[in-house]
Amino acid sequence: MTGGILDDSQAETLARMFKALGDPTRVKLLSIIAAADDQEACVCDLTEPVGLSQPTVSHHMKLLVETGLVAREQRGRWAYFSIVPGALDALASTLASSS
Amino acid sequence: MTGGILDDSQAETLARMFKALGDPTRVKLLSIIAAADDQEACVCDLTEPVGLSQPTVSHHMKLLVETGLVAREQRGRWAYFSIVPGALDALASTLASSS
Repeated sequence: MTGGILDDSQAETLARMFKALGDPTRVKLLSIIAAADDQEACVCDLTEPVGLSQPTVSHHMKLLVETGLVAREQRGRWAYFSIVPGALDALASTLASSS
Repeated sequence: MTGGILDDSQAETLARMFKALGDPTRVKLLSIIAAADDQEACVCDLTEPVGLSQPTVSHHMKLLVETGLVAREQRGRWAYFSIVPGALDALASTLASSS
């Protein structure tokens, strides 16, 4: 990947990202945000599609934000989450360049 | 991703794949195979770069094979592992199509 063998630090960074995505709820939350207008969604719109409480959704979103794939912005009462531009592409090309 | 919100079954399949990649050793093993000639490597060539015993490497490889990203072929004494053609691309485009 990235055209060669990864060093330990690169492997750890990628593994952390993959690990956060290794949960069906988080994959689904990511796909909901990616499919939304402007690739942005309010936490208040994320609970119903996954059938979970807002604290649980907020916990999953925190882990996604920590990957760097998703950004969080507080606007008044609600947190809004958006796909970090280019972040999924970067992960995708790391994978694609290896095959 | 895949141009819309994933259903539960798609989300579970992707999450399983990501989960298997959520380990630095497995990410590194995958990158070693991807960087090898013909994207294929003998288990006997995988132990030294990651500094692990062959049974441990074989365990990691088993989990990677279960993702469908890597194929295993026994030739005489040794197992050979190869990148399944198109599998990393497919995972990559699932990610990329969402951004």
